[in-house]
Amino acid sequence: MTLGNDRSFMLLALENARAMKGQTDPNPLVGAVLVADGHVVGIGAHLRAGEPHAEVHAIRMAGDKASGGTIYVTLEPCSHHGRTGPCAEAIIAAGIRRVVVATLDPNPLVSGRGIAMLEAAGLEVEVGVCEQEARQMNEVFNKFITQQLPFITIKSATTLDGKLASATFDSKWITSGDARMDVHRLRNENVAILVGVNTIVHDDPELTTRLPHGRNPIRIVLDSTLRTPLDARIITDQKAKTWIFTGAEASPEKKRALAALGVSVFQTQGNPQVDLLEMLQILGQQNVTSVLVEGGGEVNAAFFEAKLVDKVVLYLAPKLIGGREAPTFLEGTGIDKMAQAVKLVDVSVESVGDDFRFVGYPQYV
Amino acid sequence: MTLGNDRSFMLLALENARAMKGQTDPNPLVGAVLVADGHVVGIGAHLRAGEPHAEVHAIRMAGDKASGGTIYVTLEPCSHHGRTGPCAEAIIAAGIRRVVVATLDPNPLVSGRGIAMLEAAGLEVEVGVCEQEARQMNEVFNKFITQQLPFITIKSATTLDGKLASATFDSKWITSGDARMDVHRLRNENVAILVGVNTIVHDDPELTTRLPHGRNPIRIVLDSTLRTPLDARIITDQKAKTWIFTGAEASPEKKRALAALGVSVFQTQGNPQVDLLEMLQILGQQNVTSVLVEGGGEVNAAFFEAKLVDKVVLYLAPKLIGGREAPTFLEGTGIDKMAQAVKLVDVSVESVGDDFRFVGYPQYV
Repeated sequence: MTLGNDRSFMLLALENARAMKGQTDPNPLVGAVLVADGHVVGIGAHLRAGEPHAEVHAIRMAGDKASGGTIYVTLEPCSHHGRTGPCAEAIIAAGIRRVVVATLDPNPLVSGRGIAMLEAAGLEVEVGVCEQEARQMNEVFNKFITQQLPFITIKSATTLDGKLASATFDSKWITSGDARMDVHRLRNENVAILVGVNTIVHDDPELTTRLPHGRNPIRIVLDSTLRTPLDARIITDQKAKTWIFTGAEASPEKKRALAALGVSVFQTQGNPQVDLLEMLQILGQQNVTSVLVEGGGEVNAAFFEAKLVDKVVLYLAPKLIGGREAPTFLEGTGIDKMAQAVKLVDVSVESVGDDFRFVGYPQYV
Repeated sequence: MTLGNDRSFMLLALENARAMKGQTDPNPLVGAVLVADGHVVGIGAHLRAGEPHAEVHAIRMAGDKASGGTIYVTLEPCSHHGRTGPCAEAIIAAGIRRVVVATLDPNPLVSGRGIAMLEAAGLEVEVGVCEQEARQMNEVFNKFITQQLPFITIKSATTLDGKLASATFDSKWITSGDARMDVHRLRNENVAILVGVNTIVHDDPELTTRLPHGRNPIRIVLDSTLRTPLDARIITDQKAKTWIFTGAEASPEKKRALAALGVSVFQTQGNPQVDLLEMLQILGQQNVTSVLVEGGGEVNAAFFEAKLVDKVVLYLAPKLIGGREAPTFLEGTGIDKMAQAVKLVDVSVESVGDDFRFVGYPQYV
């Protein structure tokens, strides 16, 4: 890639970073490109926690050619001795003269330190090239590192008239095969998947990722009164971990029975219903950085009412089903006035097979 | 426009035809471009019923230059003496050598006759350039001329979670100003607008076109038991005609009271509910070629259940409102199985301000 500019080299670094989605947890996605005399001499990405950072891979690939070059890195190089040495030091040691960074480290404890280390060594540093793309790419990591709570994505699929299922609760299938494959990609990218107990009782799903080499998320069930059947697939199939969150008044016997089958049961305090914020705090403590909520309308509404949803992914099928009793993807009591509606920002719409995928970020007032 | 080809000249003819949307009823949209020696020497469009056809305008503009040229016309030139002379004769008389046509006349009584007349006179004729675009442009006319029924467009606006209003029936406003202006454009293009009586009782709307030089559609109310208040705006404001359709058991006194205020009341037979197909037949007899249905979920569902909807225009706002009691744009009893859902074909999605406009055509099975 000759004739590149800062932005085009950073876009290549972003591409390489994004390619590792789903395999770097609990670390962020990071990509790096090393350029000398207008030629790419090294590319790198962080592949997996415990393995070298992106900059180190790029510097190793470049060898002697790194000296005097420019490194493009999607996240501020680290300044601390973690499982690997500080990347800022490795950059300085390689003789690199210029560092272009997309975003500062979101961790307030270390943000800016890597830049300071590079500048103190006399390197030229530029921050902010492709900043928005880089920030969105690590939206999960950025929330977790600042709030210690998982990033919550609500995924749903509806007909164009807003129905999650028919009035008789048939939902096979709303969307086409392409959109359903896209959901498996989402499952692969999330550490956990969450459903309500009604989904377990009615559909007995596996909640696994049906992709070659797909990673199965931890299966979380919201089950205030421990109605999950002991012979449900998620209890018996051993395909992934199953965690059940229950309320303060759950039966100790049922808890024991589930635990005996290898299920982790977490009990939130103070209320017969599961306290969602307390649940997310527990998940954060367990290093669950992301949760894909595939709930029905009531589970989804509970998350919205608690203002805990970070992202919405809605697959819209160009179909009409009708029915005043047919469920929508957001039920609950709802909002009284249209002016109080939750707006989605940074909305994008794309075709996925015959269907359309809306992605947006709720802006709570 | 030099260096044009058949398709580019036809696209220009289509552009000119489309620009007259809403002003040619009951005639179709037609555009023409006349080309000689690679130069456009005449353009034309049918502007208004009773005025010259597109070909005649283009031929007049070209004058002597028409001779030996090629005319591009979006609809087969007519062969009959209507309010204007047959265009096929005018084309022959102008000395035009080649005729490129997008679509045949949809009227089975005359379809192909214009082409035959041109070929009999020795002109070269080509049919089918930009055929789909031309057919869709005159979807209203094509239905009316073949079925004598108005073309039915259902327009609705919902939140991303499928709600037409909040659980407390607040709907001001779902969409942004741009989308609401777009609805006024739709009203301008339709001969009539239809709502259910509940909309009149609850909102007392004007149902007019708020565009400069906009045409107000005929206001039609579905009102099986004649509950329309005598002081409703659509009854008193004189801004456009108001027609009420009622069922077989409507009160004769209320009918007389409405008629005394200048309202036309039409009664369908055999049933206390308005018979929708009979209503459309009456509207067809009254030369109403198009109806924009701006109903609530129950009116919309009645049209769908009767398979009378030709087109759906849905504005989707990137907002969430929730509420299991909040109405959706398609209620009724609905369809039991997802496999029986009505599919929309030729679906397009475009941004309109902050919102998205879905357009599609129901494919009934």
